[in-house]
Amino acid sequence: MNYAAADVKKLREETGATFNDCKNALADASSWDEAIKILDAKRDKKAEKMIFADRETKQGGVFSYVHHNHNVGVLLELNCSTDFVARSESFRKLASELALQIAGVAPKYINYEDVPAGVVEEARAKILEEPSMARVPAEKREEVISNKLKKNLGEQVLMMQPWIKDDSVVVADLIRRVIAETGENIVLRRFSRFELGK
Amino acid sequence: MNYAAADVKKLREETGATFNDCKNALADASSWDEAIKILDAKRDKKAEKMIFADRETKQGGVFSYVHHNHNVGVLLELNCSTDFVARSESFRKLASELALQIAGVAPKYINYEDVPAGVVEEARAKILEEPSMARVPAEKREEVISNKLKKNLGEQVLMMQPWIKDDSVVVADLIRRVIAETGENIVLRRFSRFELGK
Repeated sequence: MNYAAADVKKLREETGATFNDCKNALADASSWDEAIKILDAKRDKKAEKMIFADRETKQGGVFSYVHHNHNVGVLLELNCSTDFVARSESFRKLASELALQIAGVAPKYINYEDVPAGVVEEARAKILEEPSMARVPAEKREEVISNKLKKNLGEQVLMMQPWIKDDSVVVADLIRRVIAETGENIVLRRFSRFELGK
Repeated sequence: MNYAAADVKKLREETGATFNDCKNALADASSWDEAIKILDAKRDKKAEKMIFADRETKQGGVFSYVHHNHNVGVLLELNCSTDFVARSESFRKLASELALQIAGVAPKYINYEDVPAGVVEEARAKILEEPSMARVPAEKREEVISNKLKKNLGEQVLMMQPWIKDDSVVVADLIRRVIAETGENIVLRRFSRFELGK
């Protein structure tokens, strides 16, 4: 598409991508939305590379959030690879957003893989009892069950939860953004959430 | 003993006891140290009454401490009976001292009763192997073992640990003081302690 220098500037502000990436995205795209999609895809690819690079994540920090009335509190450990990133503003902001999300929405698990097999089995049994399942053709059955499972159980999985401050993204996206920005794998290792009297 | 008004004032400042309690303690005691002991005993008795009154402890709050370098953090729930005490300066100060102690000394258990049976058995077996145990008469054996167990395992038990700021008292004493002061049972219900990378 045709674009002006002001467009590059606007795109950089909106996406946080580099000047060159924005210019290339605008040149390749046929619309503004497509340019943003190109940048998103690029960021996801970069983040994925970082995640699978499997670099040791032994740095990072322990962070807490306690609600002002002391009714709920969260403690978490967020890991990255270097002390440099651990001290960065983006990393600390991410830790604080995660703590706030956990305090507000009370997830039970960090990743979908953390849901115990027994809980998955129980949810699967309930899905099979749904009247609508009888109408699903046999060859589609496993796929439908799997999607329903992720939908039902996902509410309890932090990474799959819509972010409380912007439900157009899930929590995993928040982490991916900082991974792309810092060039380091970032992992939420563990969390505790205490609610008064519960 | 003979005492002056200034002594009562000094004793109040030192112990936090009431004017009448200090006056009576000085009158009954034959020395300054004995007066303090009388007040201590009185406070312990009062605290014990509160503890065994078994009033519901459903109020309180969730508190956290994170070390400035984010290497270690603690989350805890401290309970009391009324919202009034939960909001008091003494209660909040106690919560903060407990969090600091847990961060610094890393206890594994809150009370001695929380030590798992398997751990006690293992410690007992080790004690029985000590050469000195052979010289303990049979009728004293259980008492000696019990004392050694409490000494060895007590290091991992928060309530039995010497307070990091004054090792002449144990952590349980800190709580007893606030129980006596507020007239409410106070219970540390749970804690989490995260250390970066551990």
